[in-house]
Amino acid sequence: MGISVDTFFLNPQAQGTLQAQIQQMIAEGILSGRFHVGEKLPSSRKLAAHLGVSRITVTLAYTELLANDYLTSRGRSGYYVSDNAPVPPRYTPLRRGAETVDWDRAIARRFTLGDWLDKPADWRDHRYPFIYGQTDPTLFDHANWRRCAVRALGQKDFASLTADYLDRDDPLLIEFIARHTLPRRGIHARPEEILITLGAQNALWLTSRVLLDRSRKAAIEDPCYYALRELLVQSRCRLAPVPVDGDGLPPEAVPGDTDVIFTTPSHQSPTTATMPRARRQALLDRAEEIDAMIVEDDYEFELSFLGAPSPALKSIDRDGRVIYVGSFSKSLFPGLRLGYLVGSEPFIREARALRSMVLRHPPGHIQRTAAYFLSLGHYDAQIRRMSATLLQRRQALEAAIAAHGLTIAGRGVYGGSSLWMRAPEGVDTADLARRLQDRGVLIERGAPFFAGPERPGNFYRLGYSSIPTERIAPGIEHIARAIDESA
Amino acid sequence: MGISVDTFFLNPQAQGTLQAQIQQMIAEGILSGRFHVGEKLPSSRKLAAHLGVSRITVTLAYTELLANDYLTSRGRSGYYVSDNAPVPPRYTPLRRGAETVDWDRAIARRFTLGDWLDKPADWRDHRYPFIYGQTDPTLFDHANWRRCAVRALGQKDFASLTADYLDRDDPLLIEFIARHTLPRRGIHARPEEILITLGAQNALWLTSRVLLDRSRKAAIEDPCYYALRELLVQSRCRLAPVPVDGDGLPPEAVPGDTDVIFTTPSHQSPTTATMPRARRQALLDRAEEIDAMIVEDDYEFELSFLGAPSPALKSIDRDGRVIYVGSFSKSLFPGLRLGYLVGSEPFIREARALRSMVLRHPPGHIQRTAAYFLSLGHYDAQIRRMSATLLQRRQALEAAIAAHGLTIAGRGVYGGSSLWMRAPEGVDTADLARRLQDRGVLIERGAPFFAGPERPGNFYRLGYSSIPTERIAPGIEHIARAIDESA
Repeated sequence: MGISVDTFFLNPQAQGTLQAQIQQMIAEGILSGRFHVGEKLPSSRKLAAHLGVSRITVTLAYTELLANDYLTSRGRSGYYVSDNAPVPPRYTPLRRGAETVDWDRAIARRFTLGDWLDKPADWRDHRYPFIYGQTDPTLFDHANWRRCAVRALGQKDFASLTADYLDRDDPLLIEFIARHTLPRRGIHARPEEILITLGAQNALWLTSRVLLDRSRKAAIEDPCYYALRELLVQSRCRLAPVPVDGDGLPPEAVPGDTDVIFTTPSHQSPTTATMPRARRQALLDRAEEIDAMIVEDDYEFELSFLGAPSPALKSIDRDGRVIYVGSFSKSLFPGLRLGYLVGSEPFIREARALRSMVLRHPPGHIQRTAAYFLSLGHYDAQIRRMSATLLQRRQALEAAIAAHGLTIAGRGVYGGSSLWMRAPEGVDTADLARRLQDRGVLIERGAPFFAGPERPGNFYRLGYSSIPTERIAPGIEHIARAIDESA
Repeated sequence: MGISVDTFFLNPQAQGTLQAQIQQMIAEGILSGRFHVGEKLPSSRKLAAHLGVSRITVTLAYTELLANDYLTSRGRSGYYVSDNAPVPPRYTPLRRGAETVDWDRAIARRFTLGDWLDKPADWRDHRYPFIYGQTDPTLFDHANWRRCAVRALGQKDFASLTADYLDRDDPLLIEFIARHTLPRRGIHARPEEILITLGAQNALWLTSRVLLDRSRKAAIEDPCYYALRELLVQSRCRLAPVPVDGDGLPPEAVPGDTDVIFTTPSHQSPTTATMPRARRQALLDRAEEIDAMIVEDDYEFELSFLGAPSPALKSIDRDGRVIYVGSFSKSLFPGLRLGYLVGSEPFIREARALRSMVLRHPPGHIQRTAAYFLSLGHYDAQIRRMSATLLQRRQALEAAIAAHGLTIAGRGVYGGSSLWMRAPEGVDTADLARRLQDRGVLIERGAPFFAGPERPGNFYRLGYSSIPTERIAPGIEHIARAIDESA
């Protein structure tokens, strides 16, 4: 590919001769790495016509660059970036005027203040990745996913690939969710009660913006998924963290002036506690009593390899009080960005309008690919395969933990993909995680899950969805040793 | 695919015998369309074990349904949904308790109040679709897009397909934008100054949320892209609509207390006016004088088939004052949902954090597919092909308009994909559009582009990116006749 003539502009305010300006543009292109060794320059005739200068000016500039070894000429075929041209440093900051904008003033709202878990980008290169929520290539059915994606790229699906989806989502995907996915959770919903979202995070965000404002109060579990707390803090609603116990969120502890209750009954995040049926009913009763809405994040319900999952809270909701959040990201892959909301029509209508304003809609191709993957049964097969492997890993993990005398603070009775752990008092797991990372062991510190200001520092999470079974025992040995060193 | 046992739950609060409940679950499944003719029921043994009831209870329920012709039995192979089972109405509302939630109270903020252009979902079935921003299948290089998508589904790209992209975007796509796309607009940017967004809409939304709050003022063009005005209204900032003229936004008319100026210098939306270079510089000077930021939406710059495009406003920005919004949706397809923001690092950092909170990141597969399509040169080839066709259509359109004496209110001097039209005073183009739709002609009414409350009702937009050249003249004839009938 030659260098396009369109990349050249003369700056009317620039200093120096036209020839010098042209030379400088080309040299800067090479130095900044935009033009690569061996790339062909536009002909002097073309560049001269494009810039509106005489051809001799361009030729003189090229000749000068030839002498400086920026360019090389290949007889009549033209000028090329020379093999000997200065090698660009990878993305050197380009010469520009010093920016005069006062960003502290220009930025009206900051979003970078939150406490996030940092996952090293090279986590796959670590020997013992007890990380959470990532895809294990050995468990993901990449071949069938690709087949479904290719099918969704076919002529027949042209409209679903290319069109706008403003007023509706992919009807195939919606139908599958309504007829197959939700009934397994005991939920009956019409298409108008379902909205496809860009993952569960997007579903939670949309819900918070429709149901909350500064005057309203949200109750959250403590500890809870840190990104949920962060987005509620940003919404500037009032926030009531409610400490969870071994059965999840205690209904009687939800403040009476709460407007929206966020809960994870299937596997409490991060403690993995499962809320018993009686408490689910009690939570619904409490919500009715104080006239609060409930947002149920039903993540990971599919990974119930230790026992049948309870029906969703939404399945015993007679009032339309429960907004249900589902996701395919955990069981497929996080980069998919596909989740859904189930709720009453007036709510879904507002959430859809907000979604339109913020991002229009999740890309059609992804919706259609997922619809094929689900309806052809690949999804169920993958869940079965994942469950069998996760069961093995879970057993290896619990055995290794017992052998080394580590303490489990929470374990999902139905399954899941992580354990919630407690190190001895005084152990700072942020420091522990740093030390372990040097030895190839990745764990997640627990502090970001807690509401401030007094956060316990000695919890951590062990994910087992990405670590091979045989690495679990030696990995746990590293952790036990590192904890001993802390004491 | 048989009916999964997981879709069955007994409701602990249900009335009636266990047998009756099981019968009812199955009948409801058939009546609601969840269970299809010919699908196999779980064996009585399996279902009994799952529900924790005796096997004879399930068998009795099945026998009863057999008698009612809901089910049929095929000897020893089990029970199936009968061919004669009642055919479900498509998604009958399911029997549920009346919802008691007061949605007027529960919804904190409404997003459904805006004025949107309604595009009929079946627009492809209309003979004369003068609609805007949709993909013409004869112009889109579907075959190479599919090839790139398949390549991006390969084993080598597994990580980019499946992984989280929180702190960065696809490096291939970013590199292409930095080295090839932006230099064509005269813009030099480092990777840290670029953020991939879910289309231009998402880019504008993120920008508005970072730069504006209730205390700040945004200046917008009047008329302007209605979805931009809508998202600013929702942000609750103060809004100053500034009437545009034939050269776009007049800098001297921007109020002195403006914090952010939203502008479309390349093709003003919707009038298609192109801002001359001198005015661009004057706009930058005005922004510096009043210390305002500028958001430049550079949509459609590629479709400059009538003349070379001017460099972007961002290219003459020395201060870092301009935030640049680019998009691939117009030139590829709107369902792609891929755009980008270019701005100074402090701004991009906040926009990225906000994007993470709202939707995490645009799906990796789409980013990688676009990177391949761009870097293999298919994108440029497509733009050339589109431009040649759009030029033909534009000429046919201008000729037909002249022949019928219709009035063009704005035409992009460089190209574009639409004309901005004015009907005689007193013609209501909303009504005109309705009448034309019955004759297979789709035009866009102009009122939603204007800031209220006194909106002119006689403007309309004619897109020519989806209508075949030979349909243009007869389509314009219909429009001229319908306007005559209004008079």
